[in-house]
Amino acid sequence: MMTFTDKKYSEATTKEIDEAAQKAHNAFLVYRNFPGNKKANFLEAIASGIEAQRDFLRPIAIKETHLGDARLNGEITRTINQIKLFADLLKEGSWVNAIIDTAQPERKPLPKPDIRQMQKPIGVIAVFGASNFPFAFATAGGDTISALAAGCTVVYKAHPGHPALSEMIAQIIIDAAQKTNMPDGIFSMIHAGSIEPATYLIKHPLIKAIGFTGSFKAGKSIYESAAKRDEPIPVYAEMGSVNPVFILPEMMQQKGNEIAKSLAASNLLSTGQFCTNPGIIISNENADTKNFETIFSDCIKENTGDAMLTDSIFSSYKNNIQKLLEEDDVSIISKGNKSEKTNAVEPYMFATSADTFINNKELHEEIFGTSSLHITAKSKDEFMKIAEALQGQLTITIWGTENDISDYTELINYLELKAGRIIINGVPTGVEVTHAMMHGGPYPATTDSKFTSVGTTAIYRFTRPVCYQNFDEKFLHEELKNKNPLNIIRMINGRYTKESIKKNNEIFY
Amino acid sequence: MMTFTDKKYSEATTKEIDEAAQKAHNAFLVYRNFPGNKKANFLEAIASGIEAQRDFLRPIAIKETHLGDARLNGEITRTINQIKLFADLLKEGSWVNAIIDTAQPERKPLPKPDIRQMQKPIGVIAVFGASNFPFAFATAGGDTISALAAGCTVVYKAHPGHPALSEMIAQIIIDAAQKTNMPDGIFSMIHAGSIEPATYLIKHPLIKAIGFTGSFKAGKSIYESAAKRDEPIPVYAEMGSVNPVFILPEMMQQKGNEIAKSLAASNLLSTGQFCTNPGIIISNENADTKNFETIFSDCIKENTGDAMLTDSIFSSYKNNIQKLLEEDDVSIISKGNKSEKTNAVEPYMFATSADTFINNKELHEEIFGTSSLHITAKSKDEFMKIAEALQGQLTITIWGTENDISDYTELINYLELKAGRIIINGVPTGVEVTHAMMHGGPYPATTDSKFTSVGTTAIYRFTRPVCYQNFDEKFLHEELKNKNPLNIIRMINGRYTKESIKKNNEIFY
Repeated sequence: MMTFTDKKYSEATTKEIDEAAQKAHNAFLVYRNFPGNKKANFLEAIASGIEAQRDFLRPIAIKETHLGDARLNGEITRTINQIKLFADLLKEGSWVNAIIDTAQPERKPLPKPDIRQMQKPIGVIAVFGASNFPFAFATAGGDTISALAAGCTVVYKAHPGHPALSEMIAQIIIDAAQKTNMPDGIFSMIHAGSIEPATYLIKHPLIKAIGFTGSFKAGKSIYESAAKRDEPIPVYAEMGSVNPVFILPEMMQQKGNEIAKSLAASNLLSTGQFCTNPGIIISNENADTKNFETIFSDCIKENTGDAMLTDSIFSSYKNNIQKLLEEDDVSIISKGNKSEKTNAVEPYMFATSADTFINNKELHEEIFGTSSLHITAKSKDEFMKIAEALQGQLTITIWGTENDISDYTELINYLELKAGRIIINGVPTGVEVTHAMMHGGPYPATTDSKFTSVGTTAIYRFTRPVCYQNFDEKFLHEELKNKNPLNIIRMINGRYTKESIKKNNEIFY
Repeated sequence: MMTFTDKKYSEATTKEIDEAAQKAHNAFLVYRNFPGNKKANFLEAIASGIEAQRDFLRPIAIKETHLGDARLNGEITRTINQIKLFADLLKEGSWVNAIIDTAQPERKPLPKPDIRQMQKPIGVIAVFGASNFPFAFATAGGDTISALAAGCTVVYKAHPGHPALSEMIAQIIIDAAQKTNMPDGIFSMIHAGSIEPATYLIKHPLIKAIGFTGSFKAGKSIYESAAKRDEPIPVYAEMGSVNPVFILPEMMQQKGNEIAKSLAASNLLSTGQFCTNPGIIISNENADTKNFETIFSDCIKENTGDAMLTDSIFSSYKNNIQKLLEEDDVSIISKGNKSEKTNAVEPYMFATSADTFINNKELHEEIFGTSSLHITAKSKDEFMKIAEALQGQLTITIWGTENDISDYTELINYLELKAGRIIINGVPTGVEVTHAMMHGGPYPATTDSKFTSVGTTAIYRFTRPVCYQNFDEKFLHEELKNKNPLNIIRMINGRYTKESIKKNNEIFY
């Protein structure tokens, strides 16, 4: 079996980036007009390609990321299902959000024209892969696949944490494109460990939007570069979050033990390297919380941290932990073990008061890895003050009995303002790939809280509405024709329907 | 009758802006939870208030804007209808885009949780009114009304071109708010002629998005300020466009005379002060085009330009015309008359070649006012090159017979990439307020091509999706409850339906 892990990957030159962007642009001019079925075939060929290579990809991924085999194997399945879900979306076809307002030629004082709208792809997308999900948020991950589903083409910047795996999956995508007769250049990959090639890509005039998953620092820098372009472009940067968990008093009393174990498991999973890792836990200052903390602490102590994904994630975790250890009003509760691998780290658990947390903005920043900060509040009022002090989050979780939730309605209602997803009695890790998922949230969780990077609505990051006024049936896109040949759901004169529109200018409703 | 036109309006102080933003934030925390019917009552009270004051508002608007009475009276009707359309949208309720994926407790390896999503308002919106539509794009215009419809609250910066009218409409909104028991501070207005108070408002931490209609320069500056905030916020700036019109050969031959008259009328309307004014007209270099230009030119010569909206629009128009007159390869075709009013201007008509246009980027910039540049192309290929050279536009219009449109399919298909709205055989002025309207387009037409500032989907500028995982029926918002008490259209497990969801954890489909 061939492996790529010892190969050296050279930084993309500006010439290579120009070529990739130009080829992607040329491919876009063709691909954007492909019907849903044809695009779906391409996506399904990518999914089959990954499935066929599953056992070849796993060892490479383990070697490059230090993540476990079971976790990675599950991630491959998730990635394949995600691709298939987008293929199904394309085959069904209603995702284009067709909106039709029929003409009223007799309207006074002026006739009303026929106006029809649908979502159309925007151009070449630059995708920056993440390190922590080498399949699901990387080369053939949600950003690439939703861009391709939209009808866009992609220039992908591989994450330097897993270059060989990226090469292999890029090859699977390119093979799938050839097999399904996609235009050359529909997907290209570049390598860039340094800032210059990445910046060149962001500033490239043919790039029309950016998908990114990674650190706040990198996401912010991409956002700022893109805003300064001659033609500013949207940046969909998912930058992570501390994912606060509020445990309400009756629930803590009744099920504190169980919750401690669930949350600690969520916190410890893959050495905490998830953007939905629960990093802040808030509960009442009382004996139930003491008991909860003891159990949580035991889980931490018994755990052995593994090697982190990359050198920079490793050193960033070490620095962040060091900063917390030096904070006067933050105490360390417990510390776990670490494996003997290079870049292995110990999980940590800290505690502080509501007051300290509210007044020290540094404590609000994400520590990527297994670390949790336990905050105790003296009153309902302090819960609310903590909520008010929070930055934007991907998720906020509430554990509560029915009584708790009734008692804390105001808090829960307020928390909506701070997150994209609110979870009751669950853990934030494990992001379902569905229609209703919202994996995004107010800044600094993402740079655009209107959009998700997981779930089918992720496709709308890479489209915009185009409106067609007074087009003859013959020249309309299939999705907008009177006959509704694709049998999709459309909004016609304000009502959702699959019905067709009658001919000879009769008004529909 | 009382008039306000001689009153002096003082610049808002930072203290006043702080107060307006804080009051709007406090109001938001209450208003955001109001049901659709209650918000609709408020909007309808604004509409009634404007209707009741129609005859009082018209003379003030005429005096401040120099626009004609019939035009302004029509604009009042349009504004009222726009408000009612949003009220209807709220009463119907489906606009929240409810998406529900029901739980699958038996799924292996892990149970699938119940996930439900809907659009929620984002906070306090700063709205910058336009000068050219003192009703429809100003105090109670589309930005303010769509923000209020979304459940957001508004701090409105009046346009200095019509301060008295703005005061009066602000009073109508505030009266309507009181009459319908809305929270205090739901809408405030400030005056600011200089850059400082406007910048202070843009940078205010309680402001969560900006709606703006006006010049490219001002829109770009707002966009850049907002991107540099500690918490960057979205800016929906509609900055105008040259709205190219392509006239295809057979149509030109058959109906050149008629089209010349229609387009000239569209170009001359309200001294050309529309963001959809057709500023660039492209056709073949031949005798038919010569004939078309003669008729268009006669319309220009016979027209008398009126006073422009503001001193700065007046001087900007004069400067832009002067620049065109000095261009070597641009020739003046004709010039109209001007009225005796202060700030009145003559309409102008210019011509140039495809080559000159393609190579001189200055010719691509909008001249706000009645000016048109007629470009002749030697071939189909030159049509395509012009299309490729175009910047982003609000609209692009094509005049063509069925044969023409078949012949130029590639061109028309390509033009989709450059505009928000494509019009066949019509004029770009006259923006219908409907569900399917897209009044927006790629940069520099707007700063966010995904969103429209006209039509019901304008509401989504001021919302974001929030996702609720594992919520008990009892604690879900009405829109997301199993029973569907509001009887709205929802996407449930991928299908649009008004049906309710069965109880006792049965899976719906």
